[in-house]
Amino acid sequence: MRYAVLGTGVVGRTLAATLGALGHDVVIGTRDPAATLARTDHDSYGNPPYREWQAQYPRIGLVPFADAGEFGEAAVVNATAGVTSLSALTAAAGGGGNLAGKVLIDIANPLDYSAGMPPSLNPGNTDSLGEQIQRAFPDSRVVKTLNTMNSQVMVDPARVPGDHDVFVCGDDIEAKQRVTELLRAFGWPEARIIDLGDITAARGTEMVLPLWLRLLGVIGHADYNFHIQRAV
Amino acid sequence: MRYAVLGTGVVGRTLAATLGALGHDVVIGTRDPAATLARTDHDSYGNPPYREWQAQYPRIGLVPFADAGEFGEAAVVNATAGVTSLSALTAAAGGGGNLAGKVLIDIANPLDYSAGMPPSLNPGNTDSLGEQIQRAFPDSRVVKTLNTMNSQVMVDPARVPGDHDVFVCGDDIEAKQRVTELLRAFGWPEARIIDLGDITAARGTEMVLPLWLRLLGVIGHADYNFHIQRAV
Repeated sequence: MRYAVLGTGVVGRTLAATLGALGHDVVIGTRDPAATLARTDHDSYGNPPYREWQAQYPRIGLVPFADAGEFGEAAVVNATAGVTSLSALTAAAGGGGNLAGKVLIDIANPLDYSAGMPPSLNPGNTDSLGEQIQRAFPDSRVVKTLNTMNSQVMVDPARVPGDHDVFVCGDDIEAKQRVTELLRAFGWPEARIIDLGDITAARGTEMVLPLWLRLLGVIGHADYNFHIQRAV
Repeated sequence: MRYAVLGTGVVGRTLAATLGALGHDVVIGTRDPAATLARTDHDSYGNPPYREWQAQYPRIGLVPFADAGEFGEAAVVNATAGVTSLSALTAAAGGGGNLAGKVLIDIANPLDYSAGMPPSLNPGNTDSLGEQIQRAFPDSRVVKTLNTMNSQVMVDPARVPGDHDVFVCGDDIEAKQRVTELLRAFGWPEARIIDLGDITAARGTEMVLPLWLRLLGVIGHADYNFHIQRAV
């Protein structure tokens, strides 16, 4: 199936590589492919420039957002930085209906670093990026998921031993079922996929990011995840 | 030891009863004890009026906030509704130094129901109730803890089987050690008590409330809690 991943950072790369390994046809969308490929520096997290990564995944094409939006039939994955997500998705829509009717998997977080570390959330508290995207693209079927963990854990939950959970929410039940199937293909057991209901639950999952970021300092690595432990 | 619990709701009652059962001398502080004792209605959650509860715990006194602030030597526990916490603590300080040097255990959440359900957080995102309290009472030693779960789980973690966690944060290390001892007396294993560092981490733990509240609807009861599952 054809997937588009928006965003050339480590999250987008990780998702795209995994979708490719599962046998899907994948493109990565970016604002300016030539500019992305021209970069030679490591990013602030020490990740290699895109073109080094690209050389390892020659079957994954890098295309402008609009071409990605058109290509992604099975789903379009938003893995852009939260502050740029709406403009990236607008570009992906291509001025027309590139995203209409499609499943939009939103794995981004609206982290705002403008006041330094730690980032705040914008929006936070009374709105969410997931809801903003659904409002901006009412004909698309937004499913918020995977945003509560490191990207390597997203696609390989066994990196963290024991039970831990992934949340999904969205207004379209069939879209959530499709995303759930994809999560199972990533290795998530059905019992560890928690459906929180409609897209307004994105507020809850985005708002755990400050705790997640705090735990990164406490634990010292990113191989951890939330688990909801419960009595029967 | 002498503990004061501020707040006559189910959270304050649960903490006070547990502290009493552990052999401590406990008072509950409220704005107007006579008014609290005069109430005959169940609250909106179906909890019985305070005086019915009080009849079961005759050794726990109900006193004005200022008397509670003076009484609570080992610690003063803030179990008031978040929107009233600062005024309750101001009353508990008694215009003088009732709270100076003391351990303030803040288990409240700044839930704002003014726009209906679900509540938002006020403050949220770029500040927290825990930080506000520490700023308002700089001579007190604020420890934020227990606010990420139902009150019955706070004092009886075995209600939820398996591993699950309680967070502590605060600027005073010795105060956190005392609170950690209290948590162990409640039944929390040492390995399940996660020290997040200074009081700014309260932002993270308060911001999980929207997800916690959403899970209440999904799970259908309150016997659940967050666990941070991690690779070694």
